[in-house]
Amino acid sequence: MYGTLQVISKDKGLSRLGDAFVNLVYSSAKSRSSGKPFGGKVPDRVLSRSLSIAGVRTPPRLNHGERGDIVEGTLAYAWMRGLLTLEEAVGVLEAGLRGVGCDSRQKEEEGAAKAFSAIFLTAIKRICGPGAEG
Amino acid sequence: MYGTLQVISKDKGLSRLGDAFVNLVYSSAKSRSSGKPFGGKVPDRVLSRSLSIAGVRTPPRLNHGERGDIVEGTLAYAWMRGLLTLEEAVGVLEAGLRGVGCDSRQKEEEGAAKAFSAIFLTAIKRICGPGAEG
Repeated sequence: MYGTLQVISKDKGLSRLGDAFVNLVYSSAKSRSSGKPFGGKVPDRVLSRSLSIAGVRTPPRLNHGERGDIVEGTLAYAWMRGLLTLEEAVGVLEAGLRGVGCDSRQKEEEGAAKAFSAIFLTAIKRICGPGAEG
Repeated sequence: MYGTLQVISKDKGLSRLGDAFVNLVYSSAKSRSSGKPFGGKVPDRVLSRSLSIAGVRTPPRLNHGERGDIVEGTLAYAWMRGLLTLEEAVGVLEAGLRGVGCDSRQKEEEGAAKAFSAIFLTAIKRICGPGAEG
């Protein structure tokens, strides 16, 4: 799995496609959980935090942007191959955002990071197979 | 229809959600037509041009960004209500990009604008009903 993540994280096109994917997942989930249309970018620190929560081994000394690229690239890779749908990802994030409410940005970001870590782990398992380790 | 467009174009949340939608449509269609992962933003001038090609009446004296907001807001409005799917929009744009090739940016942008105008008109028809005029 570590090797797969290294390959994915080096593909700039994949992480840019993933950037567009996570931004629509985030915008759609936040629109649904708040009940009004919203559009925005997912902060790098949220995706970086989701990687920490997921607890997978990653290359050392990466900044938030580079760590976010790993999550974005992985989700794009899974989405392009039909292993993950936009609808499924929106559902997981919407539930995560509803669970924390919207009374503070910090709580909302932690809820989003936890939901993205769950989506990321689902993608990883489907890419690498159920026995993937390390 | 003109009234509907005016309401949609004034909702900033809707146009921002639409921004995330068109960027994923564009990134996904370009990834598929070129055969390699790509991610990027649709230039405002392309969406503004798609509005001109569509030939619908719009408020006067708008800049490219404001004209792009009308297209983005309309697509988001239709998508949120299940009147347009991401997959359908990607298919139309992918076909448009394949049709013009990728030997010049100008040709590619014109192909993208034509495809977005077709997607926009489809959305408008489904929002307003088949008899919508002016």
